[in-house]
Amino acid sequence: MKVYKIAVIPGDGIGPEVIEEGVKVLKKVAALDKRFQFEFTYFPWGCEFYLENGKMMDDNGMEILQEFDAIYLGAVGYPGVPDHVSLWDLLLRIRKGFDQYVNIRPITLLKGAPCPLKDVKREDIDMLVIRENSEGEYAGAGDWLFKGKPEEVVLQTGVFSRKGTERIIRYAYETARHMNKSLTSISKGNALNYSMVFWDEIFEEVGKDYPDVKTYSYLVDAAAMFMVKQPERFEVVVTSNLFGDILTDLGAALAGGLGLAAGANINPEKIYPSMFEPIHGSAPDIAGKNIANPLAAIWSASQILDFFGYQDLGEKVLKAVEQVMVEKVALTPDMEGTASTSEVGDRVLFLLSEIL
Amino acid sequence: MKVYKIAVIPGDGIGPEVIEEGVKVLKKVAALDKRFQFEFTYFPWGCEFYLENGKMMDDNGMEILQEFDAIYLGAVGYPGVPDHVSLWDLLLRIRKGFDQYVNIRPITLLKGAPCPLKDVKREDIDMLVIRENSEGEYAGAGDWLFKGKPEEVVLQTGVFSRKGTERIIRYAYETARHMNKSLTSISKGNALNYSMVFWDEIFEEVGKDYPDVKTYSYLVDAAAMFMVKQPERFEVVVTSNLFGDILTDLGAALAGGLGLAAGANINPEKIYPSMFEPIHGSAPDIAGKNIANPLAAIWSASQILDFFGYQDLGEKVLKAVEQVMVEKVALTPDMEGTASTSEVGDRVLFLLSEIL
Ligand SMILES: CC(C)[C@H](C(=O)O)[C@@H](O)C(=O)O
Ligand SMILES: CC(C)[C@H](C(=O)O)[C@@H](O)C(=O)O
Repeated sequence: MKVYKIAVIPGDGIGPEVIEEGVKVLKKVAALDKRFQFEFTYFPWGCEFYLENGKMMDDNGMEILQEFDAIYLGAVGYPGVPDHVSLWDLLLRIRKGFDQYVNIRPITLLKGAPCPLKDVKREDIDMLVIRENSEGEYAGAGDWLFKGKPEEVVLQTGVFSRKGTERIIRYAYETARHMNKSLTSISKGNALNYSMVFWDEIFEEVGKDYPDVKTYSYLVDAAAMFMVKQPERFEVVVTSNLFGDILTDLGAALAGGLGLAAGANINPEKIYPSMFEPIHGSAPDIAGKNIANPLAAIWSASQILDFFGYQDLGEKVLKAVEQVMVEKVALTPDMEGTASTSEVGDRVLFLLSEIL
Repeated sequence: MKVYKIAVIPGDGIGPEVIEEGVKVLKKVAALDKRFQFEFTYFPWGCEFYLENGKMMDDNGMEILQEFDAIYLGAVGYPGVPDHVSLWDLLLRIRKGFDQYVNIRPITLLKGAPCPLKDVKREDIDMLVIRENSEGEYAGAGDWLFKGKPEEVVLQTGVFSRKGTERIIRYAYETARHMNKSLTSISKGNALNYSMVFWDEIFEEVGKDYPDVKTYSYLVDAAAMFMVKQPERFEVVVTSNLFGDILTDLGAALAGGLGLAAGANINPEKIYPSMFEPIHGSAPDIAGKNIANPLAAIWSASQILDFFGYQDLGEKVLKAVEQVMVEKVALTPDMEGTASTSEVGDRVLFLLSEIL
């Protein structure tokens, strides 16, 4: 029987609590389906590890992770460790180091999920955001000159390579074609006069190979507005690292909240392991209380199943998540329920044993 | 009697139609109030001008504008002229050339204005966004290397100077103190490891001079989410050029739509003229039909009155705008009405003659 090796990095804050529920779900699916098994290996990396060891992961952390079929990450970040340290040395290091250049974030309003918008039908909010995940505004390039002097100036350089821009846009066209959906590019060529003009050119150029895909192109400011006013405009969306970051948090707010938002960091060539994570943060204020919403982590677990080619199972996990929200028997406080993190996970397990 | 000289640049698309209503309002206010007069001088600059003359404004355009007390701009942009040409040579040229480093964008849900959110009280949406308007991501700095080659790479450099960052943040603290409100800084230090780390440092440093001002600091992705889920968190907000662009369009969507969103581009030292504009675009699809919503342009006209020190009058114009929306006698199609652009303007005039 096929055994998938999963590296689990529960991380900080609520990370361990929510990831545990995702692991429970994956184990249950494997037990019920019987086609494969999971083998989970835990790594204690994160901010606590940093406070003890002065580093976010072991020195040979990347070599260790390389041996796994997938990485399942909780959350990173904790008061006392500056974000730009904790993230660059763990989350962003993995994304970049393993060339996980595709970040897939579904923004789908499941049945029963709360939505802050009035006058929208549930089906109106159903977009798949494909975010560039390896370079662009997150390249980490810059300079800090004349520190402390009146002429001090700080430069932050976005790096958009042809290779990096072309591959993400091509991936998005392929996805849109495969799903038989439109593709919307979100950029800002009117102000970012190098990077986004380039982005728009590549979007058009690559589009020549996909005459069957209907395309749209929006400015990021207009896109933010339309996501709220006419979310039905969007199907598959491709955008840069930073814009994807902003718009998927906005999207999460529209589609049930961060408690329900999952993200897959994919290396499509499978040269390196891909990573799956809820997109919420470590939420230190509610950590350790067993009240964090595990549904985003469970949704990411379903993305792991998709990624290994078991879309049928991924879909069933998502159905169970939806069912939890519809029946409202076990929901955490952020969704107006009174259940604990583990009770929500247990409920998903129960529903899975009925569905599978 | 004091005479204020206003340079009017109606611009492209719906620009001329909406600006005309704003001019009508300013004339009416002056006539009723009798403390001052306006003198309007029109400039035909914009994309049509460009198509005829190969430039967006006269060569000595900036010298000409320098002589005015304020600039009143409609909208810039038109199919056939690339945005990064039309905007950099007119709108952004004025913003930067006249060191209008403060962009003030009120996001206030007026009575009667449509809001796409459910479960919010009108008072919950009432924030004043102070956007850096002279540098940052819009510095226009970059490089386009190895064009057309596989190793092609495009760089876009945000430039954050101490002077530029400090002055906008200080302006925001002053405003918050003066209004007796909290101040929220929106940045992204966890990913933009130079510029936004610097921004956060300056925000803290300048804050030492304002111990009486309550402050918050959000990541831009979280801010986008909170604007939708808990807009009441925000009072005065200070943010960078690009983030301000995105968040104010999102804010406009929440507070009645782009038909109601105004922006003032201020040079606080009054060394150069300031510029007032609705923040919507030229909307070529509805241009020339007399159906564009003039309320954003009229709101910007009220900002001109504020700027000249007649806050009492500015407030009354805003009251009239609010009244138009409450009575729903004359509203344009975007607000579910059937009135024309000029009928809305006429209605504001009528209400002003009652209020003033
Ligand atoms: C934690 C942070 C660096 C990260 C990002 O900006 O990408 C997060 O917001 C996300 O969206 O996954
Ligand atoms: C037209 C464009 C350059 C401009 C900007 O990005 O600043 C506009 O969106 C705005 O917000 O005023």
